[in-house]
Amino acid sequence: MFKPSLPQGTRDFGPETVRKRNYIFQTIRTVFELYGFEPLETPAIEHLETLMGKYGEEGDKLIFKILNNGLSDPRNMARAKQGFENALLGKNDKDLTERALRYDLTIPFARYVAMNQGQLNFPFKRYQIQPVWRADRPQRGRYREFYQCDADIVGSRAPACEVELVTIYAWVFDRLGIEVDIKINNRKILAGLAECCGGLDRLVAITGAIDRMDKIGLDKVKEDLAKSGLGPDQIAIVSNYLSIQGSLQEKLRAIDKLLGHTQLGKDGLSELTLLFQLLQTEQSSAVLDLTLARGLDYYTGTIVEAKARSVQMGSIGGGGRYDDLTGTMGVAGIPGVGISFGVDRIYDVMESLNTFPSDVHAGTRILFLNLGEAESKAAFSLMQQLRKKGIAAELFYENVKLDKQFRYANKKNIPFTVIIGTTEIQSNTVVVKDLRSGLQQALSREN
Amino acid sequence: MFKPSLPQGTRDFGPETVRKRNYIFQTIRTVFELYGFEPLETPAIEHLETLMGKYGEEGDKLIFKILNNGLSDPRNMARAKQGFENALLGKNDKDLTERALRYDLTIPFARYVAMNQGQLNFPFKRYQIQPVWRADRPQRGRYREFYQCDADIVGSRAPACEVELVTIYAWVFDRLGIEVDIKINNRKILAGLAECCGGLDRLVAITGAIDRMDKIGLDKVKEDLAKSGLGPDQIAIVSNYLSIQGSLQEKLRAIDKLLGHTQLGKDGLSELTLLFQLLQTEQSSAVLDLTLARGLDYYTGTIVEAKARSVQMGSIGGGGRYDDLTGTMGVAGIPGVGISFGVDRIYDVMESLNTFPSDVHAGTRILFLNLGEAESKAAFSLMQQLRKKGIAAELFYENVKLDKQFRYANKKNIPFTVIIGTTEIQSNTVVVKDLRSGLQQALSREN
Repeated sequence: MFKPSLPQGTRDFGPETVRKRNYIFQTIRTVFELYGFEPLETPAIEHLETLMGKYGEEGDKLIFKILNNGLSDPRNMARAKQGFENALLGKNDKDLTERALRYDLTIPFARYVAMNQGQLNFPFKRYQIQPVWRADRPQRGRYREFYQCDADIVGSRAPACEVELVTIYAWVFDRLGIEVDIKINNRKILAGLAECCGGLDRLVAITGAIDRMDKIGLDKVKEDLAKSGLGPDQIAIVSNYLSIQGSLQEKLRAIDKLLGHTQLGKDGLSELTLLFQLLQTEQSSAVLDLTLARGLDYYTGTIVEAKARSVQMGSIGGGGRYDDLTGTMGVAGIPGVGISFGVDRIYDVMESLNTFPSDVHAGTRILFLNLGEAESKAAFSLMQQLRKKGIAAELFYENVKLDKQFRYANKKNIPFTVIIGTTEIQSNTVVVKDLRSGLQQALSREN
Repeated sequence: MFKPSLPQGTRDFGPETVRKRNYIFQTIRTVFELYGFEPLETPAIEHLETLMGKYGEEGDKLIFKILNNGLSDPRNMARAKQGFENALLGKNDKDLTERALRYDLTIPFARYVAMNQGQLNFPFKRYQIQPVWRADRPQRGRYREFYQCDADIVGSRAPACEVELVTIYAWVFDRLGIEVDIKINNRKILAGLAECCGGLDRLVAITGAIDRMDKIGLDKVKEDLAKSGLGPDQIAIVSNYLSIQGSLQEKLRAIDKLLGHTQLGKDGLSELTLLFQLLQTEQSSAVLDLTLARGLDYYTGTIVEAKARSVQMGSIGGGGRYDDLTGTMGVAGIPGVGISFGVDRIYDVMESLNTFPSDVHAGTRILFLNLGEAESKAAFSLMQQLRKKGIAAELFYENVKLDKQFRYANKKNIPFTVIIGTTEIQSNTVVVKDLRSGLQQALSREN
């Protein structure tokens, strides 16, 4: 017997959850719009070759590929067979699968920019709120289908871009009632550090190790660095770097001392200094966090991450500057910077802080009870007037026992019921009952 | 050289299009909510077995299947090979593909109802606005990824459900500025007709032929009927049926004469009569259209379709009553009725009627020109005040030539620019320029 179920790692969102999620989306969207970002939507399906090779070897494996249709058509069969043989060897083959589900919103955006660069108005500020799919092993807080919520500015190197994005983080989390630290660092600082530790080719290893610092602690980071070939002196430099403490100015001075002799370190330092100057008046929640590294390889300048202060949870937003968004799409030299909101985690944080507004699940406000044909006719016409005034209302469809109708109202959290019976029709009144207080009141139809 | 492109039948939606589409979605959503419908979202990915066999043979072929991940893993390889052999024979095999993209919103909804029936509050009124995917041959107005916009009521047989859904059509199209005919018929009438033409097993053939009437005309319909085995007398009955004309009452009487002797015809007639009685005061745009048949097989009662009056275009919405939504999911006996909006067509109709509100693409209202460091500092603080008041504003990121900044404003349809130069800083004023009229005005900072 077929028992309906959901694929692993996917979720249904019932009414209450959709409303709460929409509240988050709407808050983010409103701020994006206030800052002049424009909406973009791209299809869920992309050419496989648009996506492959963009997310590292591990990422590539997690892309959901779509089987070509019509495999059993004799005209396709021979090629499909060859395609399948290739798939077994771990290769992609257009004859078996030529499309895939998007894995993030950044690569589709890069594809869009590359395809439309002639028409776009640079600096182009777009936001995008859509689901993405990853064949990750599902676990608590990690899903195979989840929403991303991105804002990017492409076509400008001005530090004012970073200021805006950091400010957007501050505004959104303020509106959502979440106190955050907005951690900021710069990849050039990390690149300077790599230079001091044997060369730029160690950047990925060093970034990766530092990125796991939160989870594994300093000792393990050192072990990882040793494994990736750093000598004791070099590990000591990283360790010195990671132990930098103090006020913003003290940190900046310490970096200067440690990395100021490298060009990249110097550049990173001056970018950071300028950014914090520009931010100071604006953002008290922005902090320099030298242990911030960010997992993704394509960042080249400022990196940023938002973390809730009072809830134990990974980052609830992150982003950074990249030099060359569309290089892999055949269009070089378009720099950009972007941020992303982690809506699933934000949802959990808001649940645990209880910061959803109390009216977030406001659905139907009034249920008209159905007492029969003539009565419900009167109720229907009054209900339509309320709806026209913007008040969500329902008339129970069937003339069944009242306790069944009340149960419906209770289960749906409808705050008021209205009774129009024979008496009320004659007196042109209604009886309104507040289901929370239990109070009942006869009113003229005007209310 | 890789040239980025979109998969056939899919689309990017740029800022203006997203805003217009959202206007449509928001209008529909608002009316759904006023009528007490609650939002539901289901994942894009479903188990293949949830979807297969629900859309007819042709539909099954158009389902996008997702290739299992890890095919090249030696542990999966043998089974994957067997799965592929089966796929070549046109069979589905879990070892090759066990998931697929949803094809509509109805079957995922049925799955949701079947899985959650114990918790749901019946009658359950849900709406759902999400994309679906079909491997159809792309053509004008037909896409492989497109949004559906559904409202369904399950768990009630009351005709009041139909009244609400028809009224929702009327409200939504009124708010969108589209004059429509809401065509109504009843499948039981068509079933009665089939009974008169050799039996109920001819219902699908007769429905199919009538459904194409619009496109192919009566003569071709007759040919089709002959091909599907109807004799001349039976074709004459269908032809009589299709030629019924006149006022609502005249049509109802004619149906009674033609089909009143069959039980199904009688039932359909009384359902139709009651529905039009209930609608009369409410909906002048509702018309009885006996040539309405609807393509889908699962309808069992009222069927409905909305068509724009002044634009040549197929239906822009449709729906109907079904007896048994969740039967195929192992839960029998849940009746329901639903409607759907065709957003892509509605978009085209509104474009051709020019009924989008003129402020639908309102993005940024004010661009602050960047005249240098000190000037932009003053501009930034004023801009943040405006944003806090809900006015979308931007400060150009870089201090570049003014004509470049004006060009940005023009291309983005920003109606006003604000100049704060040295003079304005000293006098605590701003110069506001209306880019549409070209008028320029010095104002105090308070505006």
